[in-house]
Amino acid sequence: MTVKKPGGLAGIEAGETAISTVGKNGLGLTYRGYSIEDLAEHGSFEETAYLLIRGKLPNVDELAAYRRKLAEASQLPETLQRILELLPADAHPMEVLQVGCIALGTMEPESASVGAADIADRLIALTGPMLLHWHHFHRRAAGGDGSVEALQLESSASEDSVDAKAAEGVESEVTADAPGSNGSDTGEVQEEPFDLDHYTVASHFLYLLHGKHAEHLAIRVFDVSLILYAEHEFNASTFAARVTASTLSNYYSCIATGIGTLRGNLHGGANEAVMELITQFDNAEEAEAATRARLAAKQLIMGFGHRVYTVSDPRSDIIKKWSETLSLWADDSQLYAISEAVEQVMRQEKSLFPNLDFYSATAYHFMGIPTRMFTPIFVISRLTGWTAHIMEQRQNNRIIRPTAAYVGPDPLPWPAVHERH
Amino acid sequence: MTVKKPGGLAGIEAGETAISTVGKNGLGLTYRGYSIEDLAEHGSFEETAYLLIRGKLPNVDELAAYRRKLAEASQLPETLQRILELLPADAHPMEVLQVGCIALGTMEPESASVGAADIADRLIALTGPMLLHWHHFHRRAAGGDGSVEALQLESSASEDSVDAKAAEGVESEVTADAPGSNGSDTGEVQEEPFDLDHYTVASHFLYLLHGKHAEHLAIRVFDVSLILYAEHEFNASTFAARVTASTLSNYYSCIATGIGTLRGNLHGGANEAVMELITQFDNAEEAEAATRARLAAKQLIMGFGHRVYTVSDPRSDIIKKWSETLSLWADDSQLYAISEAVEQVMRQEKSLFPNLDFYSATAYHFMGIPTRMFTPIFVISRLTGWTAHIMEQRQNNRIIRPTAAYVGPDPLPWPAVHERH
Repeated sequence: MTVKKPGGLAGIEAGETAISTVGKNGLGLTYRGYSIEDLAEHGSFEETAYLLIRGKLPNVDELAAYRRKLAEASQLPETLQRILELLPADAHPMEVLQVGCIALGTMEPESASVGAADIADRLIALTGPMLLHWHHFHRRAAGGDGSVEALQLESSASEDSVDAKAAEGVESEVTADAPGSNGSDTGEVQEEPFDLDHYTVASHFLYLLHGKHAEHLAIRVFDVSLILYAEHEFNASTFAARVTASTLSNYYSCIATGIGTLRGNLHGGANEAVMELITQFDNAEEAEAATRARLAAKQLIMGFGHRVYTVSDPRSDIIKKWSETLSLWADDSQLYAISEAVEQVMRQEKSLFPNLDFYSATAYHFMGIPTRMFTPIFVISRLTGWTAHIMEQRQNNRIIRPTAAYVGPDPLPWPAVHERH
Repeated sequence: MTVKKPGGLAGIEAGETAISTVGKNGLGLTYRGYSIEDLAEHGSFEETAYLLIRGKLPNVDELAAYRRKLAEASQLPETLQRILELLPADAHPMEVLQVGCIALGTMEPESASVGAADIADRLIALTGPMLLHWHHFHRRAAGGDGSVEALQLESSASEDSVDAKAAEGVESEVTADAPGSNGSDTGEVQEEPFDLDHYTVASHFLYLLHGKHAEHLAIRVFDVSLILYAEHEFNASTFAARVTASTLSNYYSCIATGIGTLRGNLHGGANEAVMELITQFDNAEEAEAATRARLAAKQLIMGFGHRVYTVSDPRSDIIKKWSETLSLWADDSQLYAISEAVEQVMRQEKSLFPNLDFYSATAYHFMGIPTRMFTPIFVISRLTGWTAHIMEQRQNNRIIRPTAAYVGPDPLPWPAVHERH
């Protein structure tokens, strides 16, 4: 018998990177040398994106030009709108983004003059508009008044899907006057024109979602979440994107790989799974008892622990504070307390710490974002890290092609078809 | 200084598999115990697909039922047709397949009752129809008479693309009476009705391409090529698909990863790169001299050598014989001889053997298949191997998340934006 290896390439160095450090001594995260704490406190998502994709922090002029570039890139091509409208209302939003990304690639292909960095900017600016064009198209088609309920009715047709599709129960809790929407959401989108001179990725997304400018606090927390989700070394989606890049495939294919891999519940899908969990509980006491019961039944609780971090996830401390602030602002009486109760049990019973996904869930919820958009928002952010890694892989490429231990049958003789059982 | 590792996970066992052996003692390939020689001589692609996806060779009844199932699954949904028609004529065919695959996933999602194996069958049956619907739609739009030239004119608009897009020069060499087309190709598709009772994946593809039933020899070689391309252990696209599966993402996302990774020139794109190379030469002498000159200039010649095989690629011997047979049939006076001249130089100068991609290129060409469809045909076949691996990964899953050696900057202080250069 050979000794079983841990599997999943755990602890195996699959290459080199100059982009980020994850979990030296079990904690700590830097992007190109800058700590995640500095980035989240002093920086913006646009500065983070520029840093990751272009290798340096932008100066005043570069930052202004970069925001202008993104603002201009946020216009959705007509043909792409038509394609998105043909995708059904109950599609998984990550599928909408995959189709949108690849279809854009057929219209604006990578070339000698338009490379990965430029396309990354285009996709960062377009991911929100693609998602929300599809979203509002079906809301209007379903109700005219933007009724969420009408859309839910369609969604429930495919409830036997193995994927957690739209978390219908959660979505209906997005109240008409959620703070992120800055007043009642009538479903009439874009009633105030968006001021492109003040474009940020965060403000534009919330504007497109709610049809009006969001409050400053919501924009700030959304921006922080984009900074925190931007880059994380050889995580599964980034590593998969590097495998795609290593065959010398094109940029859009690498991103489609990233989106498809991020979707899984063990990765980017975790923040949606967290939301589905905590909205099942009415109060902290119930959450505590139910969490203990789930652990006793050996059920997985999403949003805790990490393959690389062993002490804590430095991003969680940051988003937890913002989630608490937003809970007060949103006048939430239970969800934040429920989250803390789950965290407490996980620390006591399993010695596990919350990762970024756990408190991101309530933060997004308090700003009025439907649960099924949580992982797509992760895409907007992680596009920056994926792109940095794709470019790094290409600079010093060798095809990523491991081998496997064979555990199948020995050579077999060929049986004629009428001799088979 | 630390010792540099070889990179690309070369020789690293990334997991276990019971599906295939690649290159034990430098040679040999079996699918679930059956040798590639037996499969290619006695089997069919449908038996191979059944074996890989369902774990056993089908008996007489199972094989008949499986062909019926595939025949029934080969009808393209209306909405999918509309989406494909919105993709431009100069899209990369692999992008067309990615969009088609993900869009199908929005309409026919994976569920408790329709799992990976069933969707694999649907995609095996639909990949050709998706590709060829898009292809013929634009041919008709471009000329009405199915003129290839008109399509090429549109394609050349994006010739600065970094990807080898449609290989225009090659496509025009597909003569009107290529053997695979069984007579002159008028561009009038589907003039004879296809007999679903005699459906095979190979015969259906060639029928849809040429608008009439292909000759038996072309169908046979097409079928053999599908058998040879079906499965190859932890190659880059399969490994990437397993990384996607390991986050518990859905089946369609894993396949989109596979398609996007296969596309690269160091992987599935190689057979197209081979065709682009050999059609530059007028005769064997020119090919020999040019190959030597390229090697002297340290240029890469595609279609030779392999990460795992060290002695020969067992699939190459099989497809080479068929390529020779087809060359006689197609009355080719030069291309097969040119291929052999390149092979000879590579063996002499680099001790490298041809891999499957090298003689597959001419085999496809002799049966009248446009070069840009070579890698999409690889998709039809490799869907079977990808699916077997996705199912195997799910059975004993651990997220595939390696680590990286950090070679970036030490921690840096945060500079205010006006202090940056």
